[in-house]
Amino acid sequence: MRLIFAALFLISSIGQAADCLTRGTGDLGIIIERAAGSVKVIETTRRKVLFRVKGLGDLSHASVVYSRDARYAYVFGRDGGLSKVDILCGTLVKRVVQGGNSIGGAISQDGRLIAVSNYEPGGVKIFSAETLALVADIPATQTPKGKGSKTVGLVDAPGQRFVFSLYDTNEIWVVDMNDPKSPKLTQFKEAGLQPYDGLITPDGRYYVAGLFGEDGLTLLDLWHVEKGLTRILSHYGKGEQQLPVYKMPHLEGWAVAGNQAFLPAIGHHEILVVDHNSWQATGRIPVYGQPVFAIARPDGRQIWVNFAFPHNDTIQVIDTETLKVIKTLKPGKGALHMEFAPRGEEVWISIRDLDQVKIFDTTTLEQIGSLPVDKPSGIFFTSRAHKTGL
Amino acid sequence: MRLIFAALFLISSIGQAADCLTRGTGDLGIIIERAAGSVKVIETTRRKVLFRVKGLGDLSHASVVYSRDARYAYVFGRDGGLSKVDILCGTLVKRVVQGGNSIGGAISQDGRLIAVSNYEPGGVKIFSAETLALVADIPATQTPKGKGSKTVGLVDAPGQRFVFSLYDTNEIWVVDMNDPKSPKLTQFKEAGLQPYDGLITPDGRYYVAGLFGEDGLTLLDLWHVEKGLTRILSHYGKGEQQLPVYKMPHLEGWAVAGNQAFLPAIGHHEILVVDHNSWQATGRIPVYGQPVFAIARPDGRQIWVNFAFPHNDTIQVIDTETLKVIKTLKPGKGALHMEFAPRGEEVWISIRDLDQVKIFDTTTLEQIGSLPVDKPSGIFFTSRAHKTGL
Repeated sequence: MRLIFAALFLISSIGQAADCLTRGTGDLGIIIERAAGSVKVIETTRRKVLFRVKGLGDLSHASVVYSRDARYAYVFGRDGGLSKVDILCGTLVKRVVQGGNSIGGAISQDGRLIAVSNYEPGGVKIFSAETLALVADIPATQTPKGKGSKTVGLVDAPGQRFVFSLYDTNEIWVVDMNDPKSPKLTQFKEAGLQPYDGLITPDGRYYVAGLFGEDGLTLLDLWHVEKGLTRILSHYGKGEQQLPVYKMPHLEGWAVAGNQAFLPAIGHHEILVVDHNSWQATGRIPVYGQPVFAIARPDGRQIWVNFAFPHNDTIQVIDTETLKVIKTLKPGKGALHMEFAPRGEEVWISIRDLDQVKIFDTTTLEQIGSLPVDKPSGIFFTSRAHKTGL
Repeated sequence: MRLIFAALFLISSIGQAADCLTRGTGDLGIIIERAAGSVKVIETTRRKVLFRVKGLGDLSHASVVYSRDARYAYVFGRDGGLSKVDILCGTLVKRVVQGGNSIGGAISQDGRLIAVSNYEPGGVKIFSAETLALVADIPATQTPKGKGSKTVGLVDAPGQRFVFSLYDTNEIWVVDMNDPKSPKLTQFKEAGLQPYDGLITPDGRYYVAGLFGEDGLTLLDLWHVEKGLTRILSHYGKGEQQLPVYKMPHLEGWAVAGNQAFLPAIGHHEILVVDHNSWQATGRIPVYGQPVFAIARPDGRQIWVNFAFPHNDTIQVIDTETLKVIKTLKPGKGALHMEFAPRGEEVWISIRDLDQVKIFDTTTLEQIGSLPVDKPSGIFFTSRAHKTGL
C-alpha cells in the first residue's frame, strides 16, 4: 500500500516534470504574437514550435532579453508589463506591471539585473533577474509640466552599466550598477533635441542617440565618458524638406560590418553608409522604401533591410562590398522583423499579415521553410544572451 | 499489482532521468583534465562543477566545439579520439577513434557536421554531428615518403565550408560541404613552408596560416578565393636570429579588437600589433615571456596574455588603447588557458600545477573565485556554439 502511494506521488510529480524539456537552449527562440499577447517558443534546428505562452499583456511593441543561462526570456510589453518566461517549460514564471507604458529593457552584463525604461511615468526601474523584485528606481528629470521625462534607447554596457536617453529633457544618462543598492548616475545634458532611440555598437563602446527634434546624432564614447558628448552626422535626420515619415527607423537594428555602419535614413528611400571609425558618412544606397531595420548577416557580407508601410511587403538584400542591392524579396505584407541564426546560415522573417514566419537561406536567398505564428512581430534567438546591447 | 509494476517501472525510468538536468545551457562549459583524460562540466553563474566525465583518452592537447543547441560537447583528443559528451547528463554519448593522432576539429555552420584534422594518417575526416558516422574522408596529398601530409589549422567558415592547411606539402584547402555526399575541394599550392596552424577572423572572412619553415604568414580572403593566397607580415616568424622557441604560439588565440589584431611573436618577448585592414604591423608591445595565447576581452578593451615555460606562472593584461601592460598577475605555475565569459565580466584561467581554475574580475583584475580541477588545460564555454571558427 505504501508503494502504491509512492507510485501515485511519483506519477503526479512526473506529470509536472514531463511538461518541461531536458534539452539544450542554444537553438531556441521567442516570437512575439503581437495581437494575441502571447509568444511562441521555437527551436531553429528542426524549425518547430515547442510552446505557446499566453497572458503577457499588450505586446504591440515588445522586446526580449535572455538570462545568462539562456533558459528565461524577459519580455517587455507596451503596457509596462515585464514577464519572465521559462522556455524549457513553456510557462509564465512571473509577471509584474512595472510602469504605465514601457518601451524596452536590457539585462546587466552579469545577468543579475533587468532594467526597464518607461514613457509613463518616465524613468528607469531595475529589477532582480531572479525574482523580479524591485532593486532600484531611477526617476527621470521633471519636465516643466511636472512629469518625468520619457526614457528611451535603454541598453546594457560593459562594466555593469546601463545607458539611456531622456526624450523630453534632452539628456543621456549612464547608470553604474556595480553596487545595486546605490546606483551611480552620470548625467549628460544638452544631448540634442528629443533623443528618440539609442544603440550601442556591438563591442559595447559607443552609445549613439537618434534625434527627433533636429538633424544629426549624439555619440558617447563609454571608454571615455569624461570627454562628454559629440554630435555626428549632422545631415542625418528629417532635414529641411520635411518628408512624411511613416515609421521612425529602429536604431537597434543598425548594422556594423567591418569598418562600415549601415543606417536606415529617416523619411528617405536610402541606407546611409558610415565609416565606423570616423563616424563620417561615406555613401548612400537607394532602396525600395523607407527603411525600418537594416541588419547585418553575422559575417558582415550582407545587409537585410525591411521597410515602412506601404512598402512593408518587401525585403532587400545589400552586398556590403559593392553597396548594391543584390535581391528584392516579396515575402508578404507586414514583413516586420528579421533575426539571423547566430552563425548566419539562415534568417527568420515575421510576415504579420500571413500569420507566418518565413525562413530564408542566406546563401541562395531562397525560402526554405515557414512556421505558423499569430500576427508575428519581433523574433529573438537565445544567442542574444551572450551579446552586449541586445 | 499492475499499479505496483507501473510504479517500479516509473522508478527505474526516473532513476535515469534524474541524472540529467533540466536547465538552460547558456552558462555551461567544459574544462579539460589533461592528465586524467576526463572533463569537468561547469556552470559559470554559481561557479560550480556539475559533472565529471571520464574515459576520453589522451587529452594532452585537446579542444572542444559545441552542438548548435549547446547540449553536446565534441572533444578532440590527441589520440585521434572524437568524443561526444552530453553536458546536461554528464555522460559520454559516443566515442570514435577516427585517426592515429589528431590535432583539432570544427563544426559546420549548420551544426550537422564535425570535421577532424589528423597528423596520422593525415587528411580530414567529416562525421555526422548526431551519430558520429563517417560522412566524408578527405585524404591529404602524399609526401615523397608515401604518407599523407599532416593537416593542421582546421576551422569552419561561412557557406558550410571548412578550411585547413597541409603541413608537409605546403598547401591550404577549402572544402565546401553544401552537398555532404560530394565535398567540393579548392586547393591552393605554395602556401608557404610548413604551415603549422591557422585561424579565421571572427567575421569568418580571412583565413591566416602561420609558417614554421619560413617567416611571414599566408592570408586567404574567403570572400574572394579566386584571388588566391597573399603573403603578409614577412618579418613575422622565427627570423634570422634563431631563438629557442619553447612553445609555438596558438594562432586560434589571436585577438582582434577594433581595427587592431594582436599576435604573439614567435620566440620573442613581444606582442605584435597589426592593422586588421591592411595587415601591416604597426607596433610591438614588450611582455614578460614568450607569449602563447593573446586573447581579447569581448569588448576589445584588454588583451590577456599567457606565456611559455619558464614564464608560465604569469598573466599580463594589455590596454588596447595605450598598448601598455596594465597588470602582471601571478596566478600560479602552468597558467595554460584563458576563457572569457561571453559578455566579458570575468575570465577563467587554468592553473595546471595547482589543480585549480582561477576566476578573475576583468574590471578590478582581482581573483573572485576558484574551482578544483585535476591538471586543467583548455576551457570552453557554450557561447562558442554561436561563433564562427571557435
